[in-house]
Amino acid sequence: MNEQAFIEALRLLPLDPGARGLADDCAVITLGSETLILTHDMLVEGTHYLPDADMADVAWKLVATNLSDLAAKGAEPVGVLIGHMLGRDDERFVSGLAKVLAHYKVPLLGGDTVAGAGTRTHGLTAIGRATCTPVPARNGAQPGDALWLVGEVGAAMLGFEALRDGTGADHAAYSRPHARLAEGQALAPLTHAMMDISDGLLLDAFRMAEASQVTLAIEGAQVPVAAPERRLECLTWGDDYALLAALPDGTQPPCEATRIGVIEPLGFAPLVVDGEPVLNASGLGYRH
Amino acid sequence: MNEQAFIEALRLLPLDPGARGLADDCAVITLGSETLILTHDMLVEGTHYLPDADMADVAWKLVATNLSDLAAKGAEPVGVLIGHMLGRDDERFVSGLAKVLAHYKVPLLGGDTVAGAGTRTHGLTAIGRATCTPVPARNGAQPGDALWLVGEVGAAMLGFEALRDGTGADHAAYSRPHARLAEGQALAPLTHAMMDISDGLLLDAFRMAEASQVTLAIEGAQVPVAAPERRLECLTWGDDYALLAALPDGTQPPCEATRIGVIEPLGFAPLVVDGEPVLNASGLGYRH
Repeated sequence: MNEQAFIEALRLLPLDPGARGLADDCAVITLGSETLILTHDMLVEGTHYLPDADMADVAWKLVATNLSDLAAKGAEPVGVLIGHMLGRDDERFVSGLAKVLAHYKVPLLGGDTVAGAGTRTHGLTAIGRATCTPVPARNGAQPGDALWLVGEVGAAMLGFEALRDGTGADHAAYSRPHARLAEGQALAPLTHAMMDISDGLLLDAFRMAEASQVTLAIEGAQVPVAAPERRLECLTWGDDYALLAALPDGTQPPCEATRIGVIEPLGFAPLVVDGEPVLNASGLGYRH
Repeated sequence: MNEQAFIEALRLLPLDPGARGLADDCAVITLGSETLILTHDMLVEGTHYLPDADMADVAWKLVATNLSDLAAKGAEPVGVLIGHMLGRDDERFVSGLAKVLAHYKVPLLGGDTVAGAGTRTHGLTAIGRATCTPVPARNGAQPGDALWLVGEVGAAMLGFEALRDGTGADHAAYSRPHARLAEGQALAPLTHAMMDISDGLLLDAFRMAEASQVTLAIEGAQVPVAAPERRLECLTWGDDYALLAALPDGTQPPCEATRIGVIEPLGFAPLVVDGEPVLNASGLGYRH
């Protein structure tokens, strides 16, 4: 079964009506007076990190990518649970884990460790509490909204290439991404829709458009990119964890952000880039 | 790094003072008026299930074992997040997942799927809400308490052997274990200490004794076993998910349970079985 078929099959299961974890990265549940945000993401050796990667970087990325999901919900992290397959360089893994948890001041709540053979997998569950409700989702963008990007895209691509080619150039954008928690919390009360860009700006914008039943019109030249001479690659490469937000027209973001387009009524295509309609998502970015 | 060393290293990380997830299977956190119980356990192909196992059974066991951790805390499940590596018989996996979630009336909140190669791993995070506080832990057993077992031990061993040897005998006790949620919730307000027996009665009793700084004195003949002629094996085999509870002397359990021993002040050894001191845990049961 491929991923799409598996997720379709899962959708037939008894899903909590309030939960949208399979559609939207995070689950949102209300318990008493609290609204909790839960997310679980995995990293697989060879797929999500290079086989000779520094395991401290892998631990950092495992935590930061899950916290980025919380950031897109405007959530404040409560803690993480780790699912760890023991293997090479576990000391480095623990060292990276210590660094990233201290950086974000997030406690490790528990987890499980297993001995394993073959390809290593690492799972992480992050738990957050909503700082504002309703919790932003990717499906709320409205015609007339402005589209904003917090952060730039393409830096992870350059970092990946530096690592892959052993150039010695800085690769932190790829190996130690940043979860934009403060920005997410600042934006949450103002946004109609928000998500983090994990699989490429264009692919994730396409998803926001489809979920919101609108058209996102992006001006490519407005997008902050790490490599202007490779603009299209920057727009389609993932792993940057910028935040994409739809704000009502005239609302000024309370954090550094760049206006990269507008939301229009659903037209011929869900996504329009520099006036060119994009009819389907194939080739737009990284699909796990 | 072996598991023990890894966990010791993790203990140096910024752990929430209220969390004891690494020591005690579950994390316990308080948010507003709610107390949450969180647990994350993994199953590994070849280690936790036979390579030709029915994947519907694997899904069932993945959920039930995590819910059993919640049961030992007297928690009511709120939902689960799944970390799934795609592979053979995913249809069967989804079918087993549907069955077990419907059986326990627990929603799937979200998760992640990855393509993988080699040994498959499956992770599950279960979230529960405490039905009584303080939440039972394994470290509260007190001298004078009586030791009770909810369920029997050894049935999983027989089920495993039936599967392994292809005898056609019933193997549900091994492949579709039961999480004793109702019993855990009924016992929680009355217990001084509680845990589920995942790695064998004697090993887990040893752990409760060490955590509580007491001696557990077990009468082997009192323990309900599935194979009386192999009593010692039943006492050391895991996977039965019975509940072990220390109740004040004179307190009658509000559910079916068997009194199997008493709690004594810490003596020569943490565990005494039929009058024989057990000085260390090696060989007592299954250690992951």
